Amino acid sequence: MKLWRKGEGDDLDPLIEAFTVGNDHLLDQRLVPYDCRASTAHAKMLCKIGVLTDEARDALCRTLEQIAALADEDKFPIEQSDEDCHTAIENHLIKELGDVGKTIHTARSRNDQVLTALRLYEKDALGELKQLLETYRTELDDVVHRQGTVPLPGYTHTQRAMPASVAMWAGSFADGAAGDVRQVDHTIEMIDQSPLGSAAGFGVPVLGIDRQMTADILGFAQVMDNPMSAQLSRGKFEAAILGVCAQIMYDLNKLASDLILFNTREFGFVELDERVCTGSSIMPQKKNPDVLELLRAKYHEVLGEEFKIKSLGGNLISGYHRDLQLTKGALFNGIDTTASCLKVVAAVLGGLRFNESTCRAAMTDELYATERAYTLVDQGVPFREAYQQVAAAYRDKGNKGNP
Amino acid sequence: MKLWRKGEGDDLDPLIEAFTVGNDHLLDQRLVPYDCRASTAHAKMLCKIGVLTDEARDALCRTLEQIAALADEDKFPIEQSDEDCHTAIENHLIKELGDVGKTIHTARSRNDQVLTALRLYEKDALGELKQLLETYRTELDDVVHRQGTVPLPGYTHTQRAMPASVAMWAGSFADGAAGDVRQVDHTIEMIDQSPLGSAAGFGVPVLGIDRQMTADILGFAQVMDNPMSAQLSRGKFEAAILGVCAQIMYDLNKLASDLILFNTREFGFVELDERVCTGSSIMPQKKNPDVLELLRAKYHEVLGEEFKIKSLGGNLISGYHRDLQLTKGALFNGIDTTASCLKVVAAVLGGLRFNESTCRAAMTDELYATERAYTLVDQGVPFREAYQQVAAAYRDKGNKGNP
Amino acid sequence: MKLWRKGEGDDLDPLIEAFTVGNDHLLDQRLVPYDCRASTAHAKMLCKIGVLTDEARDALCRTLEQIAALADEDKFPIEQSDEDCHTAIENHLIKELGDVGKTIHTARSRNDQVLTALRLYEKDALGELKQLLETYRTELDDVVHRQGTVPLPGYTHTQRAMPASVAMWAGSFADGAAGDVRQVDHTIEMIDQSPLGSAAGFGVPVLGIDRQMTADILGFAQVMDNPMSAQLSRGKFEAAILGVCAQIMYDLNKLASDLILFNTREFGFVELDERVCTGSSIMPQKKNPDVLELLRAKYHEVLGEEFKIKSLGGNLISGYHRDLQLTKGALFNGIDTTASCLKVVAAVLGGLRFNESTCRAAMTDELYATERAYTLVDQGVPFREAYQQVAAAYRDKGNKGNP
Amino acid sequence: MKLWRKGEGDDLDPLIEAFTVGNDHLLDQRLVPYDCRASTAHAKMLCKIGVLTDEARDALCRTLEQIAALADEDKFPIEQSDEDCHTAIENHLIKELGDVGKTIHTARSRNDQVLTALRLYEKDALGELKQLLETYRTELDDVVHRQGTVPLPGYTHTQRAMPASVAMWAGSFADGAAGDVRQVDHTIEMIDQSPLGSAAGFGVPVLGIDRQMTADILGFAQVMDNPMSAQLSRGKFEAAILGVCAQIMYDLNKLASDLILFNTREFGFVELDERVCTGSSIMPQKKNPDVLELLRAKYHEVLGEEFKIKSLGGNLISGYHRDLQLTKGALFNGIDTTASCLKVVAAVLGGLRFNESTCRAAMTDELYATERAYTLVDQGVPFREAYQQVAAAYRDKGNKGNP
Repeated sequence: MKLWRKGEGDDLDPLIEAFTVGNDHLLDQRLVPYDCRASTAHAKMLCKIGVLTDEARDALCRTLEQIAALADEDKFPIEQSDEDCHTAIENHLIKELGDVGKTIHTARSRNDQVLTALRLYEKDALGELKQLLETYRTELDDVVHRQGTVPLPGYTHTQRAMPASVAMWAGSFADGAAGDVRQVDHTIEMIDQSPLGSAAGFGVPVLGIDRQMTADILGFAQVMDNPMSAQLSRGKFEAAILGVCAQIMYDLNKLASDLILFNTREFGFVELDERVCTGSSIMPQKKNPDVLELLRAKYHEVLGEEFKIKSLGGNLISGYHRDLQLTKGALFNGIDTTASCLKVVAAVLGGLRFNESTCRAAMTDELYATERAYTLVDQGVPFREAYQQVAAAYRDKGNKGNP
Repeated sequence: MKLWRKGEGDDLDPLIEAFTVGNDHLLDQRLVPYDCRASTAHAKMLCKIGVLTDEARDALCRTLEQIAALADEDKFPIEQSDEDCHTAIENHLIKELGDVGKTIHTARSRNDQVLTALRLYEKDALGELKQLLETYRTELDDVVHRQGTVPLPGYTHTQRAMPASVAMWAGSFADGAAGDVRQVDHTIEMIDQSPLGSAAGFGVPVLGIDRQMTADILGFAQVMDNPMSAQLSRGKFEAAILGVCAQIMYDLNKLASDLILFNTREFGFVELDERVCTGSSIMPQKKNPDVLELLRAKYHEVLGEEFKIKSLGGNLISGYHRDLQLTKGALFNGIDTTASCLKVVAAVLGGLRFNESTCRAAMTDELYATERAYTLVDQGVPFREAYQQVAAAYRDKGNKGNP
Repeated sequence: MKLWRKGEGDDLDPLIEAFTVGNDHLLDQRLVPYDCRASTAHAKMLCKIGVLTDEARDALCRTLEQIAALADEDKFPIEQSDEDCHTAIENHLIKELGDVGKTIHTARSRNDQVLTALRLYEKDALGELKQLLETYRTELDDVVHRQGTVPLPGYTHTQRAMPASVAMWAGSFADGAAGDVRQVDHTIEMIDQSPLGSAAGFGVPVLGIDRQMTADILGFAQVMDNPMSAQLSRGKFEAAILGVCAQIMYDLNKLASDLILFNTREFGFVELDERVCTGSSIMPQKKNPDVLELLRAKYHEVLGEEFKIKSLGGNLISGYHRDLQLTKGALFNGIDTTASCLKVVAAVLGGLRFNESTCRAAMTDELYATERAYTLVDQGVPFREAYQQVAAAYRDKGNKGNP
Repeated sequence: MKLWRKGEGDDLDPLIEAFTVGNDHLLDQRLVPYDCRASTAHAKMLCKIGVLTDEARDALCRTLEQIAALADEDKFPIEQSDEDCHTAIENHLIKELGDVGKTIHTARSRNDQVLTALRLYEKDALGELKQLLETYRTELDDVVHRQGTVPLPGYTHTQRAMPASVAMWAGSFADGAAGDVRQVDHTIEMIDQSPLGSAAGFGVPVLGIDRQMTADILGFAQVMDNPMSAQLSRGKFEAAILGVCAQIMYDLNKLASDLILFNTREFGFVELDERVCTGSSIMPQKKNPDVLELLRAKYHEVLGEEFKIKSLGGNLISGYHRDLQLTKGALFNGIDTTASCLKVVAAVLGGLRFNESTCRAAMTDELYATERAYTLVDQGVPFREAYQQVAAAYRDKGNKGNP
């Protein structure tokens, strides 16, 4: 039964019900432990302000703990008829505790339950991304340790430009990851505000709730005081989180693009572990870098999810709209995609080997043209003249097309 | 076992396997009947050109029919280890028919199987969208028949502007749907080309396949002759299909936005059927138009999917890349979303009632200012002067803010 | 002076004025001839229905012709104080013709002027894109005629896969362009409806205007009867036009991506004409394919503009909003970008040469693995076994990494 | 003359030249002072490491100061033939100083000039956004001070929900702005790394440059050590900056959406200053909130620019590509749009008046339903029962549709 049913005869058309619930009941599975934590904090606070007896509070907290344990073992399914995890949990409390269960929703709204559970989840998810970024960095460092001294042509415009090395290449991605870790931290800092108590977005009248208490129990750095701010942040914070995910994925996309090219017969700079390669159904000779191609493509998956959130929240007035419910699936998909890509790229890097001899053979003469010009500069020739001299030498050697 | 396994020891890392297969095995469920149709046509053609005996062909066709029947009853699950529907079907043929099963993949690649099955599916899906558009139009016509004469203020800048009516309002969406039907037709026309025989994107050597024959059996208007065109169209055609879906959704977004506003207490122009409304968990008085808000929001869901396809195919060279696999989920989600929204909007329109008295009361004086100016024009006053006269009258009446 | 000024004292804050006018006065320059055509048709119609005398009509038509001639010579600047081309033209008519000038705006709104001028422009612009697509196809055909028989490795997953050729490569883009031409035609067909007479989106009261007459004069295939449809199509049609532009650009992006790779030292399949290459400020040896990179990048420019239009029109109720004004810049930029890229790609193709010897040398053994398997099939070996045999042969030859 | 010209006969096709230069020469105008600062620091460093004499350094620094002064007065135009500001400045130095001018480009590339000038500009631009955010917050505070006690219905689902107030409404946007200021700070912190010395993305050989010295002179918090990191950050940093701009615009979009609705006749909660309103060309009575609609729409303008940057950098390998040049226009447009919107919203808020009597009249009974239920809770009724009782009371009063 839904939280907002007012009595007999207000049943939804089944088509409409399926449409409005969507896959919320499936998506919400991951939010069950977070709602249990938030409901526990809420019950404690209701007790402190005198709305609940100690016994009611204890019964609620105990049952919420049981629900979280069930969810942990995948034994707390949310049905479509439950609509979402918040209703499923309240219904379970009522089934187990009767009238006591009916008290838990005092002084709160599903809106702030959703926001609170999401925010707790988001903090955890961002924390996990940080750890995965660190593992990825460690693998990059390992590449440097293993083969950092292997030379690589540096490319601009996909053309050989100047000398680089495996250390420079892997190091640049490690630096990128370090910057991303800081952005993840900043994002955690931004969202680390308790929305609990904002209710439907306009606060809780009559009952003197203690928002600082629930924020403290839940480990939020501060209370989001203005209740309308809580709704204003919906979508905005999620967009920022996917913005960071897209930033992380931008580097993985580039790393994968590099390796796909380096892995071609024409370049041949790297060898991928067989365990990460796939074949072709028609061409017996193929050993394809599908995993790299999917890493590359998933960047766009995250971009698409980010864009959904940013676009759907536009042109809406303040306050909650059901539209915002769609941010949930996009957020989860964006975060999951980023997390799985960080795991996979770490595995790929673990099995990556640069073909040193091929790389050395690719360090052709033209990569040193700038060095040559600078040696002239070192001997006193103004740079523009040195440049023209070296350029002329390349031209004379008939280096058209690809010098 | 995967199609491209070459023998012992080429097993994938489980993490990599889960990542590369993704949810393809689930997504592909809907493609099983289409691949069975395509494989049947392919078997017949292989027989005709002498690669298969009549008996082999008949055995293959019979078993493919059985697979399609199983799939129809949801009894042909595709496992992650099967990777996709094409492998699952080939594996099933081999299990049932032994060596005969091993012949079906002659002269084709998974690439053209995917393309062919997708294209057959897409033609069906677009055909269904057309029917749903027609049902939606019929409901709009019914609104006109029921209450077309009810007047409505016409709004520009969300401000009352000039007189309109329910007939004009609903009629504009009916016209929009008629245009969308034509766009769906054009899209079907564009994609109605058989890719079967393009193999991995470079055609089939040695064996003299008959591409016209399979195209005819499958009901394609023509063969896509150049095999590289088949891969070039991957992503491009899918983007065009989601472009049409976005076009359809643009109108539904606007219709939903209108009704959400018309349904506010302040406007009060419409009443929604209780069966399509939902409540609030905290506010007992609420009767919320969630269904309309989700209709509105789903436009952005489709946009996001369209964008994924358009963005991920960019900057890639010709020929198949595994990246393109990600277009499948985006395509299915975009089409499913559009189809479900067309069904839901038809249900909403079926239960829609305009409050005639509220609408009439809203036909306030200022809506007729232009009419007044034109009456002056009719009496010989040049328009700009008539405009200034009427404007002055409105100003004199103290119509500031909202005249 | 702005069309809607009602008298003294309603001046805008200069900051607000600059913000609301934006760069409309610059963008509108290209719409002047189209508004002159539309205004001429409107004047003739007003005369026919008795609102204007023959003399007034002739004076207006004559002056409109003069304005169009001035605009043709870049001598009809639109000032910020004019706001847009429609105001500039009406002000000019009033300045030249006095009271007669004040009659032109009878029975129309700026809204339908904008829509009509835009639609006329769009039909022309789409016509030009068709011509440019044809030129591009001709250049592709020339490539085939010049060097079609040059072999090329066909790539899947950026890995050598099967034999292809210049004819197959260029031919696939020619086919793509042919499909795009049809999509352009379908788009022209969709938008070929006269909005003139829809006024502010709710039609023209009192004065019995003849919409068919103006549609006929302007060469529209039909009248857009429902005035609300005219506003509903705003943004929707523009999105469809940029959808086609993005479709065209998708192919150019891929063609450019191919050539950038083919032009590397490692591939070396093509040589670009010096006249289309640029250099580096630091590396004397470089000859960079900037033009190809910009062709590639401009796809995303068009995507971004398409997305603006699709996103900004979302969640808005029916009827005109000033938001829609922003579609103009996005539309123009998207169309201009596509047109310039089609011109540039034609120039690039004109100077393109495949290095036949490098291409032939790249036709390495593994490209023929499928052919080898099919030869076994031709000799009676079931395909899956033939595949395994050939794969084993490749493995034995030690073809790891890049066979 | 372009920096990379190597001698006679390497002129570009004019079509190609116009295409590759694009509007860079116009966009770059704003970068002139930043390149002058960077070139000055570079000259000082070249002197310190012994490449330049003191006299040469002084001459270069003096001339660069003159260029910056000219640019300040709009007297340093960049021609299409100059390609960009970097070339224009070097050409000017050579024209003024002869051989000394030819030394400035020693040990650097246009790539790191572009990056350095952009980064300096970006730091300034973000600093300006911070100031504009503060002004906007001040105006919001003023709204609270002027009319904070005016009650407002709080809306969820665009339906009256619970009591709110002008203080709560404006305060939520002020909180949002405070969060945005912190995000701007984090973004400045992220980009505050000197790319100067990364040259073409692979550092400077031979000449022992002092990157810390130039970083210190230019006020960067640190040197971006790995030269490949500098190129990896191109596009990524710009995307992050537009991500923050989009975040700022998200709030402005919502604020504008609120005011557009509040300004309707049906709501009537606010009155806009005449100086920020515009009229209609056909409807004499209209006073339209165009400025608010453009504020709303500009969010999508910024989104589109953000998306261009994020999409165009995808699927490219490491190292500079000309594609990235297109990020410049998108970045500037996104920043300029955000800055102008912050200025305009401040002006709008300065002239905003809530109609207190209309707002009070809108505080209808149903807004207090939750309060009523909580009063029952306060009296000992479990919440779910209190909810059902109040809901039943509303139903009995015949509150269908819009209670």
